[in-house]
Formats: sequence, C-alpha cells, structure tokens
Amino acid sequence: MTGFTLAELIKKLQADAIEVELLGDSAYRVDSLATLQAAGPHQLSFLANTKYRRFLSVAKAGCVLLSPSEQGFFSGNRLICVNPYLAYAKASHYFSLGVTKPVSIAASATIAPCAVVAPSAAVGANVVIGDRVVIGERVVIFPNVVIGNDVSIGADTVIYPNVTLYHQVQVGCRVVIHSNTVIGADGFGFAKGAAGWVKIAQLGRVIIGDRVEIGACTTIDRGAIEDTVIEEGVIIDNQVQIAHNVRIGKHSAIAGCVGISGSTKIGEHCTVAGAAGFAGHIEIGDRVHIGMQAQVTKSIQSAGAYASGTGLMDAEEWRKMVARLRRFEQLEKRLKKLEDQASGEHG
Amino acid sequence: MTGFTLAELIKKLQADAIEVELLGDSAYRVDSLATLQAAGPHQLSFLANTKYRRFLSVAKAGCVLLSPSEQGFFSGNRLICVNPYLAYAKASHYFSLGVTKPVSIAASATIAPCAVVAPSAAVGANVVIGDRVVIGERVVIFPNVVIGNDVSIGADTVIYPNVTLYHQVQVGCRVVIHSNTVIGADGFGFAKGAAGWVKIAQLGRVIIGDRVEIGACTTIDRGAIEDTVIEEGVIIDNQVQIAHNVRIGKHSAIAGCVGISGSTKIGEHCTVAGAAGFAGHIEIGDRVHIGMQAQVTKSIQSAGAYASGTGLMDAEEWRKMVARLRRFEQLEKRLKKLEDQASGEHG
Amino acid sequence: MTGFTLAELIKKLQADAIEVELLGDSAYRVDSLATLQAAGPHQLSFLANTKYRRFLSVAKAGCVLLSPSEQGFFSGNRLICVNPYLAYAKASHYFSLGVTKPVSIAASATIAPCAVVAPSAAVGANVVIGDRVVIGERVVIFPNVVIGNDVSIGADTVIYPNVTLYHQVQVGCRVVIHSNTVIGADGFGFAKGAAGWVKIAQLGRVIIGDRVEIGACTTIDRGAIEDTVIEEGVIIDNQVQIAHNVRIGKHSAIAGCVGISGSTKIGEHCTVAGAAGFAGHIEIGDRVHIGMQAQVTKSIQSAGAYASGTGLMDAEEWRKMVARLRRFEQLEKRLKKLEDQASGEHG
Repeated sequence: MTGFTLAELIKKLQADAIEVELLGDSAYRVDSLATLQAAGPHQLSFLANTKYRRFLSVAKAGCVLLSPSEQGFFSGNRLICVNPYLAYAKASHYFSLGVTKPVSIAASATIAPCAVVAPSAAVGANVVIGDRVVIGERVVIFPNVVIGNDVSIGADTVIYPNVTLYHQVQVGCRVVIHSNTVIGADGFGFAKGAAGWVKIAQLGRVIIGDRVEIGACTTIDRGAIEDTVIEEGVIIDNQVQIAHNVRIGKHSAIAGCVGISGSTKIGEHCTVAGAAGFAGHIEIGDRVHIGMQAQVTKSIQSAGAYASGTGLMDAEEWRKMVARLRRFEQLEKRLKKLEDQASGEHG
Repeated sequence: MTGFTLAELIKKLQADAIEVELLGDSAYRVDSLATLQAAGPHQLSFLANTKYRRFLSVAKAGCVLLSPSEQGFFSGNRLICVNPYLAYAKASHYFSLGVTKPVSIAASATIAPCAVVAPSAAVGANVVIGDRVVIGERVVIFPNVVIGNDVSIGADTVIYPNVTLYHQVQVGCRVVIHSNTVIGADGFGFAKGAAGWVKIAQLGRVIIGDRVEIGACTTIDRGAIEDTVIEEGVIIDNQVQIAHNVRIGKHSAIAGCVGISGSTKIGEHCTVAGAAGFAGHIEIGDRVHIGMQAQVTKSIQSAGAYASGTGLMDAEEWRKMVARLRRFEQLEKRLKKLEDQASGEHG
Repeated sequence: MTGFTLAELIKKLQADAIEVELLGDSAYRVDSLATLQAAGPHQLSFLANTKYRRFLSVAKAGCVLLSPSEQGFFSGNRLICVNPYLAYAKASHYFSLGVTKPVSIAASATIAPCAVVAPSAAVGANVVIGDRVVIGERVVIFPNVVIGNDVSIGADTVIYPNVTLYHQVQVGCRVVIHSNTVIGADGFGFAKGAAGWVKIAQLGRVIIGDRVEIGACTTIDRGAIEDTVIEEGVIIDNQVQIAHNVRIGKHSAIAGCVGISGSTKIGEHCTVAGAAGFAGHIEIGDRVHIGMQAQVTKSIQSAGAYASGTGLMDAEEWRKMVARLRRFEQLEKRLKKLEDQASGEHG
C-alpha cells in the first residue's frame, strides 16, 4: 500500500526533529503531496505563504500542515507545527520516488588508472575522470561529466550530467551539482599590455564545502593565486557567475542569474535575490539580504536588507522619468534658487 | 542551377500563405539572401526596419521584399507584401542548405533496453537515453545529449549537442532545444532549518508544448509539486532561467538572459526583452511587453508595455544622479516647505 | 630546485619585454606567487591595486613587484617596474605547472573520415568532430566537446570540455574556449505570423579572431544572414550572451553576464563591466567603458565611461525612493508652479 497514515507521518517527522500536533484522524492515509488548490482527499498539503490562505476554506486536501495561528482556517485533518514550510520540506522526501541513478562504473567511462574511485561510487556512461582524482563512497556521477586531474569529491556527492570540473577542484561531502555547471574554469584575469590583453595564469583552486548545492549552468571560477571558496551549507541556484577568489560564507543562499565579481567576499547566512550584481573586491557582512537585480558596488557591514532599481513603470511614463532623471540637477538648482529668493524675502 | 526565378519565389511564398506582388522581371534569378547593404545583383534582400531605409536608394540587390509604403524608394525588382519581415522569414528557409544531422542510431549511444526509439529517429554519438524514454518519429538527437528516465519527446523535435533532460521531462512535437540547455533540474527550493537549509524534494515535471524553441545554455527547472509548463509556440532565447512552477502562455517570446522566479505565470502573446527579471509568485496577463532589464516585482493585469531603469548616462553624471536619488526625500521636503510658505503668503 | 633567483626572474621578464629594476639581493630565490597578505619569505608578490597598499608595510613576501611611486612603502626585495600588474601577469606563467591536456587522439573520439586533424593536435575522449572540419597544429580539444560540420580551428587553440561548436564556426589561432560554451547556435530570429512565430533560418556563421579568450557557459549565436564576428584579441568572460550579427572590435573586454542584442556593434578597446545589457541594432565607438548592469539603449559615439542604475540603498529607503520616482512628474509641476508664482511676484 502506498503512502502513510497520519500516525506514521507524525513518527517520520519526529525522526526528522519536527514536532507536530494532529487535529484529526491518525489512521487517515495520504499517498502524495499537492498544493492547497490542487490537493485531493488522499493528499497532504501545507500553507507556507499567507498569500495562499484564501485557498484553505475550500481546500479538499486529506491533511494540511499548518501553523498554530492558521489552524482555525481549515476544518479537515491538520498537522499543526511551528514551521509548516520546514515540515513540508522534510515530508517531501518521504513522497519522492527518487531518481534512478547510475549504480556501477559504466564500461564507456574513461577513468585514469591512477584515479581512486570508492567501491560504492557509481560512474555513468562517457564520464571522463583525470589523473589522481579521488572519488568518495557512494558518490554518483551521471553520464558525460568531465573531471580534470587532481580533483577530489567527498562522500555522498551527486554530480548530474554534462558538468565540467577542472583540475584541482575540491568538492566536499553530500554536495549536489546540477547539469552543465562548470567549476574551476580560469578566472577573468588579464593585464593590459602594449599589444593587447596579457592573460594571467590562474593558479588557485575552487574549494566547495560540505552540503553545498549548486544549480544548473552555473560557473565558479578557480582563483588567480589563492582559492575561490564556497563554504559549507551554501545553496546556489542556476545561471550564477562566481568569479575568481570570491568567498561565500556558510549557509548563504544565492538565487538565479546573480553575478559576483572577483575577490568579493560574502558573509554567512546572507540571501541574495535573483540577478543581483556585485562589484569586485568588496565585502558583505553576515545576514545581509540583497534584493532582486540590486547593484552592489560597495562593501556592506551591517546586517539588513538592501535594494536597487526604479521599480516597474508603464513604458511611456518610464521614458519621461528617464528624461526627468537627466534634468534632476537643473531641478535641484531651480529649487535652490526659489529657496534663496524665499529666504531673501523672509530672512 | 542554384536559386530561383522571381516567378518561382512567388509560387513558393504563395504556398507559404504569403501574397506578394512583383514589380519587375519574373524571370530574374536570385541565388541567396543578403542584407540591403551587402546584397549584390543575384541576391534577394528585404526592408523590415525603417532604420535601414536609407540603404534602399543605393542597394544593389537583385530583388527586395518591400511593404507597399516603401515601394517608391527602390527602383529594381521588388516583391511587394504586407509584412516583408514575415516574407523574409519564410524565404530564408528556401535558401538554407540545412545542417547535416545524425541519420541513424550511433553505435556509441547508450540506450536503455526499455526505451522506445521510433525507427525514423536519429541518435548521435555518446547520447545516453534512460529507462522508459519514448522518442517520436523523425526526432534528431545530436551527440552527447543525456536524457533521463521516463522522458518523452514528440515527433520532429531536434535536440542539439550537450543538452541535458532530467527524468520525466515531456517535450512536444516540432520542438527545438539548443546546445547545453538543461531542462528539469531541481528547482531552488529549500526551507530554513536550525542546522541550515533543508532541501525540498522537487517532485514535479517540466512540460514543453509543441513548436517551442529554446536557446542555448537556458535552464528550465522541474516543478516542486506541480509541473513547470511552457505552452505551445513559446520561443525562448539563450541564457534564460525559468524557475520551478513557472508557466509561460502560448506564443510568448522570452529574450536572452531573462530570469523568471518560482511560481510566476506569464500570459499568452507576451514579449519579454533581454535580462528582464521577474519576482516569484506573480501573474502577468496576456499581450504584455516587458522592456530590457525591467524589474518586474508585481503582477500586471493590463496588456501594454512596461519598463524600468535609469537609462544610460555619462558615468560622472550618473554618480551625481545616484547621490541626488539619496537626497530625493530632502528635496521633496524642501519643496513642500516652499509651498507652505507660498500658500501662507497667498492663502 | 624549484623557483627562480631574482636574477633569473629579471632575465625572464626582460625576455617578455618587461623592464624591472631590482632593489635587493639578485641571488634571492622565490618559488611561487602569493598575495601581499599571504606571501611568505620564498614567495613573489605584487601591488597592483592601491587599496591593498596598507599591506605593504607588514608584508612578509620574499620579493614584491612595485611601481616606482610605491617603492618606499616596502623595505624587502623589490622589483620596480612601470606596470606591476603586467609584470605579475607575465610572471604568473613562470609559476604555472600547467594542466595535463589530452596528448593524442582518444580511441573514443568520433571523427568524420573527411575531417582533417593536424598530426600535432590532441583530441580527448568522446569528442565528436563533423564532416570537413579542419583542426590546426597543436590544437587541444578536451573530452566531450562536439564540433559540427565545416568548422575550422586555428593552430594552438584550446577547447575545454563539453563545449559545442555548431556547423561552419571559424575559430582563429591561439584561441581559448572554456567549458560548456556554445558557439554558433541559431540567433533568436522569428517573424510574427498569423499562427504564431515563424522561425527565420539562421544562415550566417560565427567568426572568432586570433588570440580571443572566451569563458565558460557563454553563448555566441550564428548570424542571420551575415556573420557574427569577434575580432582578434577580444576577451569574454563567463555567462555572456552575444546575439546574432553582433560584432566586437579588437581588444575589447566583456565581463561576466553581459548580454548583447542582435546586430549591435561594439568598437575596439572597449571594456564592458558585468551584467551590462545592450539593445539591438546600436553602435558603440572605440574606447568606451560601460559600467556594471548598465542599460545601453542607444548608440555611443564618444569614448568615455557610461553607467546606469540607482546605486544600492537600504531596502526601506529604496521602497520610498521608488514611490517618489512615480510622483516625480508631480514634483516637477509643483516646482514649476512655485516658480511661476515667484516670477509673478518678481517679474
């Protein structure tokens, strides 16, 4: 029989350190997850964003994960807990069928004789593994990944198809790297010479801590001299660009399309929204939140939220606003002139 | 003999539902396409952007596709039509030599025994195809593509090299997916727990409708619970990031470097210019145009054009403008003070 | 013995056309490079950014590359030169161990019989090379690269893993292309027809000049009719999007996440900072600098620096500033009204 009774679910959540209180029938059975709008009588749902509270009164879910303050808005089976989103995060894994992963070393993999692959690791078709690479226990490497020389990969890490790891990259344990991501390419370091740009050899490495997750088509460049470092527990979305010698502190979260220029340091427990950009050689303290598309050109010491941009306007109004910004200086001067006149009259 | 007479061209365009009127010699022969500036006497050209009208009077093209209102600006052979750009789009295919594609199943492809590949499909070198994958008639899969379990690909779809499709992705018919694009990687879903970020299993799929075109290095994440959906006829450029549970309506166009955050819905027939960014959980109606780099933080119901940004300035002026934005509040207060004084005098 | 004496280093730099003057012990030996903060007594360092000058007085480096104006700030061995950053760029290569590269033609490579691969070229595992491809002397192609038909690659070019080159792409000599980059995918060209978007066949090529360097996960689309051209000596970072028919002039530098729309021309010796965006069909002159995230919507003739954006603000202040921008027009009107009143009184 698929799914779980609510009693079983409570037991599993407890094992995951989530305390829940049931209002309802402990023998009731749910077999999958669904959103509040879509959930049917044999599905578990949750309310994490108050925006969706209006759906509670009409929800047909078999059971809903709710915070104590929301429990009155639903009359069916409820699992009351302090953080329903966290409870849902844990529960999502109980309903995951999992992905079939490579389970052995594919015959078409090209593995350097001096590489060391743990017996429990799996290596997919057409994977290429360079000299002196060390691959830990239970690592799963999907097809068509290329791993350069002297890379090390910690236990339980998963690397999805078509990823490239350049030489000397060090990846921790329980790391996830999504497809087509590139780690360890040369940083963008060039000096201007008489005959054009002179490349600076990029001699540093990339160090990825434990339990880091990295999205798809993301790039993390190797250091110029010292290393580029992603500390443990950092989560990075898709299409992110992390330049040479950047350091991202523990448990920070970097959303999609963010760009971080060379040698910039980001603190711990920061959250960076999509497409924000960071100048090089700046330092961001701990627990800083950077808004979507923000233009981070200076260091930030204080925790807090920061943002940039004009917001969205009707295109016609926007064109006028842009023109007005260009005569902002004149406006200020005109204001000053009026003030001077007024103070001449009143002074 | 290469190329076509103008009479032949007219016939081909008619077969493509494009009505043209010839002013000139129907036996005249053109053998390739060229821009107005570059076209020689045996080339077909077109005017689609009025910006380039100044080139008409000196154009050496053998024939030009023109709208009725432009026909007086050129004296050579002209094909007059309502939409010269559309006519050029159709004609471009007559002059395309096409690309040699894989024509059979490469010996180096790794295809799961339980996958079903249509007899007319072609699978390139080193392609990896997972369990229970279904590949339709005349599908072409270029080398080094990796396709996860339970994927289905409709007839006549083309997938270029190094693409990754994760498990359960559903791709329609006549879809084009350019190189190194990733479809179906995990959405960026994490809940904050006491010991760091807790991953939310991403259980939804990605559904791609018929006749969708997707550029290179684009990422479309699988849904968290429900599916991420790209409806039929949508066109997506390179380096686009589409997060989990996004839905893009029919025939919308998404230009390069756009980022769309989780659960955002975009309507039908929308056009989104390059590098625009969308916050999560918002809804954009039909026939909305979003400008380049626009900052879309709220839902938009009304059709129309929307934009953001300060426009471009001389860097020195820009620095002053940024400083002025910071004292904008003071300026408004100073204005208010003057108004109060004035109303005191006049009131 | 590893490393070099300072006398040897001076000789090597002279061979690289860098004149240095030694203040110190010519027999002193350095064995690696390090930053000023980290350098130990057997390491060479440099000062290129005055921001780091404060580290000079406490630096433990065995030798420092310094400009004449900085020489008094350090008392150990110094190599005085006009451009320490350029000297460091040259020296970085003396200390590079290099990367082990493929050295022969891998048995698992799939090479069309009519392709011509120079005897000194190396082709890695699972590389796929199409019909009539020409690969020059000493070219190195890393594993899992896919190269379409009719591509030519000049001598001494290096292509890292998982790159895709579409048909007809022409790559010069001494070019570097980093991993998962895509060159020659179709430009985003569609005309609007009654039944939806009509694709325009992309018939042009991509031409990459000599000594170009291209980062990882970058996309350069083929031309619609004419070619997309990257001139010699251009350097391009990661995650850059270059649309069809763009031309980038000699020795220009394009930082990460930049997007350049179709048919835009960028001059020579330009520098474009991260995430700047260019509208299509515009022309940028020579020696133009574009700031980070700049919104380039019009052509620029004059050399100089240009920028956009509001700068970064505290999120609460930012929200108020955005609201104020929306009533900017009213503010201007209120100012005008006061001026009219004042001129009525004074006029």
